[in-house]
Amino acid sequence: MAQSHSSSINYFGSANKVVYEGKDSTNPLAFKYYNPQEVIGGKTLKEHLRFSIAYWHTFTADGTDVFGAATMQRPWDHYKGMDLAKMRVEAAFEMFEKLDAPFFAFHDRDIAPEGSTLKETNQNLDMIMGMIKDYMRNSGVKLLWNTANMFTNPRFVHGAATSCNADVFAYAAAQVKKGLETAKELGAENYVFWGGREGYETLLNTDLKFELDNLARFMHMAVDYAKEIGYTGQFLIEPKPKEPTTHQYDTDAATTIAFLKQYGLDNHFKLNLEANHATLAGHTFEHELRMARVHGLLGSVDANQGHPLLGWDTDEFPTDLYSTTLAMYEILQNGGLGSGGLNFDAKVRRSSFEPDDLIYAHIAGMDAFARGLKVAHKLIEDRVFEDVIQHRYRSFTEGIGLEIIEGRANFHTLEQYALNHKSIKNESGRQEKLKAILNQYILEV
Amino acid sequence: MAQSHSSSINYFGSANKVVYEGKDSTNPLAFKYYNPQEVIGGKTLKEHLRFSIAYWHTFTADGTDVFGAATMQRPWDHYKGMDLAKMRVEAAFEMFEKLDAPFFAFHDRDIAPEGSTLKETNQNLDMIMGMIKDYMRNSGVKLLWNTANMFTNPRFVHGAATSCNADVFAYAAAQVKKGLETAKELGAENYVFWGGREGYETLLNTDLKFELDNLARFMHMAVDYAKEIGYTGQFLIEPKPKEPTTHQYDTDAATTIAFLKQYGLDNHFKLNLEANHATLAGHTFEHELRMARVHGLLGSVDANQGHPLLGWDTDEFPTDLYSTTLAMYEILQNGGLGSGGLNFDAKVRRSSFEPDDLIYAHIAGMDAFARGLKVAHKLIEDRVFEDVIQHRYRSFTEGIGLEIIEGRANFHTLEQYALNHKSIKNESGRQEKLKAILNQYILEV
Amino acid sequence: MAQSHSSSINYFGSANKVVYEGKDSTNPLAFKYYNPQEVIGGKTLKEHLRFSIAYWHTFTADGTDVFGAATMQRPWDHYKGMDLAKMRVEAAFEMFEKLDAPFFAFHDRDIAPEGSTLKETNQNLDMIMGMIKDYMRNSGVKLLWNTANMFTNPRFVHGAATSCNADVFAYAAAQVKKGLETAKELGAENYVFWGGREGYETLLNTDLKFELDNLARFMHMAVDYAKEIGYTGQFLIEPKPKEPTTHQYDTDAATTIAFLKQYGLDNHFKLNLEANHATLAGHTFEHELRMARVHGLLGSVDANQGHPLLGWDTDEFPTDLYSTTLAMYEILQNGGLGSGGLNFDAKVRRSSFEPDDLIYAHIAGMDAFARGLKVAHKLIEDRVFEDVIQHRYRSFTEGIGLEIIEGRANFHTLEQYALNHKSIKNESGRQEKLKAILNQYILEV
Amino acid sequence: MAQSHSSSINYFGSANKVVYEGKDSTNPLAFKYYNPQEVIGGKTLKEHLRFSIAYWHTFTADGTDVFGAATMQRPWDHYKGMDLAKMRVEAAFEMFEKLDAPFFAFHDRDIAPEGSTLKETNQNLDMIMGMIKDYMRNSGVKLLWNTANMFTNPRFVHGAATSCNADVFAYAAAQVKKGLETAKELGAENYVFWGGREGYETLLNTDLKFELDNLARFMHMAVDYAKEIGYTGQFLIEPKPKEPTTHQYDTDAATTIAFLKQYGLDNHFKLNLEANHATLAGHTFEHELRMARVHGLLGSVDANQGHPLLGWDTDEFPTDLYSTTLAMYEILQNGGLGSGGLNFDAKVRRSSFEPDDLIYAHIAGMDAFARGLKVAHKLIEDRVFEDVIQHRYRSFTEGIGLEIIEGRANFHTLEQYALNHKSIKNESGRQEKLKAILNQYILEV
Repeated sequence: MAQSHSSSINYFGSANKVVYEGKDSTNPLAFKYYNPQEVIGGKTLKEHLRFSIAYWHTFTADGTDVFGAATMQRPWDHYKGMDLAKMRVEAAFEMFEKLDAPFFAFHDRDIAPEGSTLKETNQNLDMIMGMIKDYMRNSGVKLLWNTANMFTNPRFVHGAATSCNADVFAYAAAQVKKGLETAKELGAENYVFWGGREGYETLLNTDLKFELDNLARFMHMAVDYAKEIGYTGQFLIEPKPKEPTTHQYDTDAATTIAFLKQYGLDNHFKLNLEANHATLAGHTFEHELRMARVHGLLGSVDANQGHPLLGWDTDEFPTDLYSTTLAMYEILQNGGLGSGGLNFDAKVRRSSFEPDDLIYAHIAGMDAFARGLKVAHKLIEDRVFEDVIQHRYRSFTEGIGLEIIEGRANFHTLEQYALNHKSIKNESGRQEKLKAILNQYILEV
Repeated sequence: MAQSHSSSINYFGSANKVVYEGKDSTNPLAFKYYNPQEVIGGKTLKEHLRFSIAYWHTFTADGTDVFGAATMQRPWDHYKGMDLAKMRVEAAFEMFEKLDAPFFAFHDRDIAPEGSTLKETNQNLDMIMGMIKDYMRNSGVKLLWNTANMFTNPRFVHGAATSCNADVFAYAAAQVKKGLETAKELGAENYVFWGGREGYETLLNTDLKFELDNLARFMHMAVDYAKEIGYTGQFLIEPKPKEPTTHQYDTDAATTIAFLKQYGLDNHFKLNLEANHATLAGHTFEHELRMARVHGLLGSVDANQGHPLLGWDTDEFPTDLYSTTLAMYEILQNGGLGSGGLNFDAKVRRSSFEPDDLIYAHIAGMDAFARGLKVAHKLIEDRVFEDVIQHRYRSFTEGIGLEIIEGRANFHTLEQYALNHKSIKNESGRQEKLKAILNQYILEV
Repeated sequence: MAQSHSSSINYFGSANKVVYEGKDSTNPLAFKYYNPQEVIGGKTLKEHLRFSIAYWHTFTADGTDVFGAATMQRPWDHYKGMDLAKMRVEAAFEMFEKLDAPFFAFHDRDIAPEGSTLKETNQNLDMIMGMIKDYMRNSGVKLLWNTANMFTNPRFVHGAATSCNADVFAYAAAQVKKGLETAKELGAENYVFWGGREGYETLLNTDLKFELDNLARFMHMAVDYAKEIGYTGQFLIEPKPKEPTTHQYDTDAATTIAFLKQYGLDNHFKLNLEANHATLAGHTFEHELRMARVHGLLGSVDANQGHPLLGWDTDEFPTDLYSTTLAMYEILQNGGLGSGGLNFDAKVRRSSFEPDDLIYAHIAGMDAFARGLKVAHKLIEDRVFEDVIQHRYRSFTEGIGLEIIEGRANFHTLEQYALNHKSIKNESGRQEKLKAILNQYILEV
Repeated sequence: MAQSHSSSINYFGSANKVVYEGKDSTNPLAFKYYNPQEVIGGKTLKEHLRFSIAYWHTFTADGTDVFGAATMQRPWDHYKGMDLAKMRVEAAFEMFEKLDAPFFAFHDRDIAPEGSTLKETNQNLDMIMGMIKDYMRNSGVKLLWNTANMFTNPRFVHGAATSCNADVFAYAAAQVKKGLETAKELGAENYVFWGGREGYETLLNTDLKFELDNLARFMHMAVDYAKEIGYTGQFLIEPKPKEPTTHQYDTDAATTIAFLKQYGLDNHFKLNLEANHATLAGHTFEHELRMARVHGLLGSVDANQGHPLLGWDTDEFPTDLYSTTLAMYEILQNGGLGSGGLNFDAKVRRSSFEPDDLIYAHIAGMDAFARGLKVAHKLIEDRVFEDVIQHRYRSFTEGIGLEIIEGRANFHTLEQYALNHKSIKNESGRQEKLKAILNQYILEV
């Protein structure tokens, strides 16, 4: 029986509803830069940013790391099974309310525990889904996306859709079938595929081609089933280069685009890009966003950041203003994220284990992206980089450059041109000058 | 006037013709494992390996590094301009002969210096090409591939085909036009495109989409021109993730495949994969070879290795037997490299500056790949990994697995199957056992 | 009541006692290169290598990783608490017997679970210690080293000796006090300090100097207490640069030596060097061994390897023959490891979850180090690298070089020498030639 | 004959004297945040920051990279030899004037070319030194530090003080002797040792202990000679982990401190810490500054930044406000840099080749550090992190904590305490909260 939010329990200690108090506020539990109703470029910050809270890092993660047991102090700690699942729903919607977060996201196994059989597992899901549906109706909070956790259970040790075990492929299919039904039931704006175990530990025992083919088969089945049940949310693939695998198949934006094109899936999927996954793959976050954008495949964003010196996925809350500014720059140039949003796929540090650390952390992230949005908007409004780029490539708007662009040039004509044009004059790329301007915008907007 | 090889000058000190003396030889100037005429799997080692010497690292590199001036002691050091170019041709073919290397590869600017105009530059090329053509005829050594150096001259500071300067695009087109004519003239088995400056230093001043479009336009012009002049050698793209750029567009195999498909070039190009570029992109060499192979795009190999702890392109000679074995495993599974070969894109260390270090280094690389070939051949012959893989994926040869492969399954049938199959049994991936077997094959074959 | 080994239970499936069958054996459960009784350089391989089994990775690790639940299938899985602890002792000594491993190592919390109080915890320890003591007596297997797990329990979230909480420092002291008593009780040859949480997540909330001072205070208390109870085993510090911390204080060999010298501890400690920690710190394993050796501080080795492309501690079993050879080279040059040994701080892959994978993995590691030992021994016996080095530095055995070494030179005399010696002649470092020789020794010894 | 600055030539194009115009200025050739005469904490920004221009990156670097020829357009390009050296002095002091930079730094070979003999080389040095001395007198600009370039010339291919060739050791000694005389002649505030080639390419041919001993011998000779000639400037060692070597001996702060202590040099040297070298060694810049500071060995700073995704030394101008703020935080806590300063060991990108790019770049760096200084000053003034830290470690100011600090505790007393104190209560480290505060200070100070 779905239970509306019992206001009696206060899950996040002293933190009341977080309000915007402006840049000079010294209240750590207030927004300094995220004023949800502030309008820029014709939309409110809330409409631009479409913040989403990640159920797993925020309500299920317990602070365990590779060398240590749980540290997180959560009011719902001592509950078990379905009671725990229900308490988490309550806590979640309390936080959504406190942060005025419009969206949330979850893996199936975040909201309801597996039963002893798949049938029981699905029943658990249905019960909690019902509860969530009520809370969504009462609060107005929407589901940005849901996904299937096909990496924690030992059955997925060799992968899910790319497992060498057909029974596992079948189980994964059943799990995503249920996931799409959940997405439709809760009106998820998107459905995400993150292939945490879709890769390999060693090539010595792996048929890479067979596994890629199976991954594509699986995706096509998902596309077909969504069509069949009338689920129209956007399918998203989330690239990551490694961890827990040695190599993960959808390594980065370009690799994922190659996979989608190779198997005729590029019309059905866009990309959900995470900052820390980008840097683990050796790219800046803005590079991955630009690659997806220029291919028309930028679907949504997992907002976080890695630590530049650590080679594993740290999923820190995004506070680097350079990263948030250049990310929002790409998102605004993309005309926004459509059905996507900024999902805080971020966890508090193991040593930030008190409940209100969750509030501080989301405030830090929301403020950093709000600031990034305003700076990016001003940079675009002032055509700071556009004018530089327009000027830089101007030689392609006339003469031989225009011939090249309009397909009227070939090796003959270009050789002739080169033979006749003894001197070539390049101009400085002005990187240092541009970085100084970027600093000034970040500080002064 | 092309000059046949003057046997009077001995460019590589004490090193005479390097012969195979077998594994117990203590002669550092003899092959221990590379016996060119030895036949395995119906082909001689020479036919399998198709070794190629890289003109740039071997005859033009002078040992300069980011912090130091030239160290290399070369008999042709004190020559300048076209005399230097001719001496290098002589030295090159002396080395090819000493090493019995069947192929070589060069950038245009390796063999002949730029003149003050493009016209003069092409004349210099023609002269040296004529000399090389004679030497090839006399020696039987073939050109594995040639390419254009569109990264050293300052005109390419912002890229070549992706330059923001149309005049540079034009010059690059003229240079590749000449390159294709050279390829045809010398019967190059392949023509390589390495986009050393095709990328960016910062996104702040870059129109990434425009530059990718231009790169594709350029490639199509090259395809068209090769067809026009009847040059049928295989076009190859060589991925590299960065250096000298911050980001290089054809980052790795998957990204390059995405680019080729995106712009309809995948029927015209294959990949030239270099070990050190693979590891700089965060992949093992065998991963990149596998990715290219399963997409039918494995064209040729630049044989070298990086240093696992150094974040720049060290281009060391390939001596790691794990890397050469697993690379040859992929190459044999590919049915060989067709028109491709193993080009030693490798340089002696700055501190290995004596002429005979070049011989020692090539012997080390040729022996390591000969050993790798024999071990890989035996692994395949004994179906060591095939049987493991066949056994691992056997559940897809019957029942629900076969339905999946044959497209007869969907989310409904798979859910039903999963609901009815309570327990899933996985088997160990046996990585440690396989690594022990690999060690035994490397040591005992 | 300590229980002697009940031979009824067979913990490792089909694996019987692993025997040496030689390099052509195809029995995966036999040694190919590790013949324990084979004598080289006057000592048996068993005496040279002093293999040790790591209790934590082998008997307590369950295959959990950052994204997944336990996968390991262990016969003792379904036991709990002290019954589980006893079963593990049985399983451990069965494996020591099967592998003829002379040593083992453990953290306190590996062998006995924490109770609800420190007192109860120590009682649990005493009980299991008693059982282990019996098994050691019956089997002859010795304890290479023990240590305290001061990183798993949430109390250590901010460190142990470097915690900002004095109560945690006190608890840690009590735990190491018990550890030293255990070491004495079981005759541990060494006692190890690995500061898994002795570092920081961020400098923003850290008093680095205070924490280093406290770490030193703690170490001095341990030195004092060992003296007090007459425990004469060697104290070892195990460097690691990060993970789980952002920065770990004893980062690498050099940093740890600096700490020991700074706080007057260098006479009481040596280093326990792990291969994967070396590469995470940006060094080769042989570099860290050389640094410790030349400072007279090489105490023991944690034998494993990382994956060169993965930025986290993978703790794979050591199978890379280059690493084992160059590691044994340093160890032999050190005159062996004294009271130290080769402890397999290595875990089977999460996907190698069957019990006999543990046997395959240890065989792979023991064979790889046996091979490395033989090759290193031959390299030293043939003075392969010594002669090269002796020749390279010969200019310091006479003339100005000898003056420098004997302290008879100064800037005046050296300037005069330089002014008078116009030309300086360097010789090649011959790296490629040496790598080819190393390959030949690895293959042919 | 030293020539005073001829105001006729304008080396940096349109850039006149750069003045402070405040944060809202849109003049790219003005300071937005660096107001030299502004006083905070009792000192002007100019006195706090002690900016220094690096002669090598600014006046001799030509834009060559590993794959490309020179790109830099410099008015002095077409001069050669000693004329070029003189033009550079003029250009240098014009820039110092335009930027109002109080200091500069150089390698010997930056200011004067080598002659055919050491004697001739020293004569060239003397001539240019004379000219520089005049310019310093006329301009008031001081020499922050000088050093010897013992890495470019091929003679140093195997190192300088750590070369295997005694003749090279002798030459290096003569070169540093001259360097110390230069330092005294020009009143250098410090003298720097950067061991670019003091390391190894491979351990296979290296006697690491012998080379470290020789490095120490060399440093002691330098200490002795400075005392002999009465040069009292601060000796500084600049750590770097690698590049151009595979391993460089003074790897990072901790390793260098270990070396200094091992060889009794720690009273004669402090550290010159460079941001990009810190990150190449796997540390944050603020970590290395903190390590040096708490050991009382923070001497000076090479101000620049690396690119987090590139594994080589990019030496970009420092524009990241997080890095400059946290660096200035450590410097202020150190009580400033004493005789040290902020030397821009930074180069414009190869594609920023126009003369005025040098001005833009220095403005960007000076503004970023000025802003960092103000923010750091405010953070310290408001005790933002001090109060957090003081609160965090308060348990060591009383009870058992105080006993520990005052050396009155031992394992017995601590065990007793731990046995009696059942529950341990830790508090959150508040990382996210602190990062949000840091952002607010960076934006709002």
